[in-house]
Amino acid sequence: MAKRQRSERANVTAKDVAADEGPLYARIRDELAAKIASGKLKDGAKLPTVRELAKERAINPMTVARAYRELAERGFITARPGRGSYVSRPGRAPASNGRTAIAVDPSIDPGGISSRLFELARAPGVIAFTGNYPSVDMSDAAAFAHCLQEALARGATEYFRYDPPAGREELREALLPFLAAQGIAARAGDIVVTSGGQQGMDIVARSLLRRGDRVILEEPAYFGAINVVRAAGAVPVPLRFGPKGFDLDEVEDAIRRHHPRLIIINPTFQNPTGHSVPLDQRRGLVRLAIEHGIPILEDDHSPELRFRGEALPALRALPDAEQVVYYTRGFGKTFIPGVRLGFLLPACGGLGDCLEIKATTDLQSPALLQGALAAYFKNSDWRGYIVRACAAYRTRQERLFDILIDTIGDYGRLSLPEGGLSLWLELAGEINAREVYFNAVRRGVAFAVADSFSFRPDQPSALRISFGLTDPKDYEEGARRLAHVLRNVVTPQRPLSSAFV
Amino acid sequence: MAKRQRSERANVTAKDVAADEGPLYARIRDELAAKIASGKLKDGAKLPTVRELAKERAINPMTVARAYRELAERGFITARPGRGSYVSRPGRAPASNGRTAIAVDPSIDPGGISSRLFELARAPGVIAFTGNYPSVDMSDAAAFAHCLQEALARGATEYFRYDPPAGREELREALLPFLAAQGIAARAGDIVVTSGGQQGMDIVARSLLRRGDRVILEEPAYFGAINVVRAAGAVPVPLRFGPKGFDLDEVEDAIRRHHPRLIIINPTFQNPTGHSVPLDQRRGLVRLAIEHGIPILEDDHSPELRFRGEALPALRALPDAEQVVYYTRGFGKTFIPGVRLGFLLPACGGLGDCLEIKATTDLQSPALLQGALAAYFKNSDWRGYIVRACAAYRTRQERLFDILIDTIGDYGRLSLPEGGLSLWLELAGEINAREVYFNAVRRGVAFAVADSFSFRPDQPSALRISFGLTDPKDYEEGARRLAHVLRNVVTPQRPLSSAFV
Repeated sequence: MAKRQRSERANVTAKDVAADEGPLYARIRDELAAKIASGKLKDGAKLPTVRELAKERAINPMTVARAYRELAERGFITARPGRGSYVSRPGRAPASNGRTAIAVDPSIDPGGISSRLFELARAPGVIAFTGNYPSVDMSDAAAFAHCLQEALARGATEYFRYDPPAGREELREALLPFLAAQGIAARAGDIVVTSGGQQGMDIVARSLLRRGDRVILEEPAYFGAINVVRAAGAVPVPLRFGPKGFDLDEVEDAIRRHHPRLIIINPTFQNPTGHSVPLDQRRGLVRLAIEHGIPILEDDHSPELRFRGEALPALRALPDAEQVVYYTRGFGKTFIPGVRLGFLLPACGGLGDCLEIKATTDLQSPALLQGALAAYFKNSDWRGYIVRACAAYRTRQERLFDILIDTIGDYGRLSLPEGGLSLWLELAGEINAREVYFNAVRRGVAFAVADSFSFRPDQPSALRISFGLTDPKDYEEGARRLAHVLRNVVTPQRPLSSAFV
Repeated sequence: MAKRQRSERANVTAKDVAADEGPLYARIRDELAAKIASGKLKDGAKLPTVRELAKERAINPMTVARAYRELAERGFITARPGRGSYVSRPGRAPASNGRTAIAVDPSIDPGGISSRLFELARAPGVIAFTGNYPSVDMSDAAAFAHCLQEALARGATEYFRYDPPAGREELREALLPFLAAQGIAARAGDIVVTSGGQQGMDIVARSLLRRGDRVILEEPAYFGAINVVRAAGAVPVPLRFGPKGFDLDEVEDAIRRHHPRLIIINPTFQNPTGHSVPLDQRRGLVRLAIEHGIPILEDDHSPELRFRGEALPALRALPDAEQVVYYTRGFGKTFIPGVRLGFLLPACGGLGDCLEIKATTDLQSPALLQGALAAYFKNSDWRGYIVRACAAYRTRQERLFDILIDTIGDYGRLSLPEGGLSLWLELAGEINAREVYFNAVRRGVAFAVADSFSFRPDQPSALRISFGLTDPKDYEEGARRLAHVLRNVVTPQRPLSSAFV
């Protein structure tokens, strides 16, 4: 049986990343992982015991035990002491302590199946359309590194003291012109420096949400937003989100029916779809939130990366928005990937609570990075960087869009957002995005799947195709591989394997 | 009345930090703050309205409004719209959103009264015994800064990518010998790199605790531990902690009565008392935890800073401890203050959940700092640093102890811990530590007060006198000032002020 499985795998090209080689336990591990990923082994299914499988295969039980242990460590299966091993729910860590499992993401889920696949996607030879942030070479990381070196040369002493949780004054001051350029009025004392935009969202969720609270959240939504809602024990209420934004009547209806404690929205180049919320909806949403006294968490990850169309104001920049809008942003998706700094501008009256939670979370963000980022915003030509980055990424976006329309346009609806580093492909008909994903990674092309961005089952099948890190010379080959996979998934020539293990 | 208040203040020395100068609103603000701090204005007391006070003082209502606004921003008072202003509970931020107020600390509480006093304590002329971490000059920060410069010189590219939440492999590997030196066996894959020890504690609390859960916690305890318990909505169950550790029977009794979901303990050079848990209690606690299936969160902030006595193993180093002990530590209190890096070694089976929460919190800790810290542990003589630091701090500790015994020994019981950067003074009789604190800061000497480390009212009155940052040539003058304050508090010559405002 294992032989048949392997002979099937022999069909894939040399560039693929199938685990045909290596020790026996690894092959068993990857074989089972493949079955789980493709749905041949259903969630919750009981696996044979170690001894059963060892006997069936005529191999050493230690070999099977090791395969099982690694599968458990990676979240594929759950070992229940004395009761055997079971297939874990995909994309979620094994349930523990009675907690609601938290939705996870290919790029950050540590133990889940998506993580295993993410590892494959980073393997040599795979063309990865997974990075919705600039590559280090395309970003302004060099300018920031220069600021770091200067800070260290001046003497590191002041950066190795404990600081207040709100962040360094020099950074909070340096962010004011940056905010003003976006039409947002603030004082340095209003700002909480955070360890990335993700932490800003988590702080707001911890500040405002209690177990069981309802939260209006776009669907699909950024997995980081889904995670903070779930970590707070709150319940997301879906707001349909599409190329034209959302429906204000639907928001109002959800408010009346669910009495939400928070609305989370990423209005510009939304992650994952790339769509933006039109101005009238922005105004209407803020008005509704003020009317009903519901805070809005605005996640604004990269509004500067606009390639066409008119700039839209942040929700926080609208009149009276400071009454309800908590504005969070990081700098990793525009300026310096991996910088792990961002800030939070709480709504009026929300500052004290957010500062307490910031202190409880990690006391303060690293002072050295803060000092260097302050210098970056004060002394570097970050506006010039934005102009250059937009020009370069617009070219890339349009080229990738053209290629994809030609090669896979028939399989669904491909969006062309006004900015940001992702395209969004809604797959037609009954195409299963998960199945596409698993086959694609084996075929040497990777992207993110819609269910990483969903908090309900049975969502439309879609792919986020990000080009922040992808070399443009790989666009055509990547598209060709994806087309090949789609062809096969739509008309499968034969099942990957019909038997268990 | 304001005149009388000011004339009283004229008694304090020029070195004091009273706010006698500056604009009128600031004087009103500080006058009220002083009343609140000294207990003349009780918690929950209603203040006169802005217009009432303005009329009484014959000043502009805008002046009073500004004073009130700043008091509210700093957590002294709470403005309830339409109902007036009230004195906030001391040391806690204004209640909001129906949350339990979180206990706060002088060094991190952003808005509370302790924060205001902390600002005063950092004022020039104040001798601050508040830093229980090494000063930058005494620490190994220079060696770490060198590692940072080398990392940047090699090329910063690899440090500005997104990394997995568990942390960089190079750092997790570099920590293994460090852990092994403490008798802790671990694999790199068991370790979660955190943004400081505080984040490790917060992650464990979020992973294991639900609203209403009971947590056994030393009393007094590190405020950061109290904060993570409260932020999780859990309820601390006090475990009396003294020079001889705790009573195992009390732990067993608390387990039977309260069914705790977690035990939090800082067994070596406990913050704030400096006391250490003897070996037999360590063994007994781990045994009890295993028997009853209750996880232990072990906070081990600076076990290397031992000046005398035999080294004690971490709880996590004891046999079978990996079944229950979550081991957290940071590097700020031993090696590099303000580095904002630490790690968490979860108990068996706890890794996946902790990684999810780490990702939800801030995705990952900054890669550059991780890379430099890995180089620090691999290439620097950190063991030599420890030897030097222990020698230097032992001398300081003994000198400060001798001085304090001579000057204030009559006012309470002063401990001489076997290591760490704090002494602990339990005040005798009815001496109110808060009152001592407020007067001391005005007299030009500062320290931390026991109620920052308490989660119940009516705790024994005590002071944490830390010497990590204090210049030894200031020890005598600091002790003299403290003695002066204690004399006056014990036999008050007259009340600070008997009238309201």
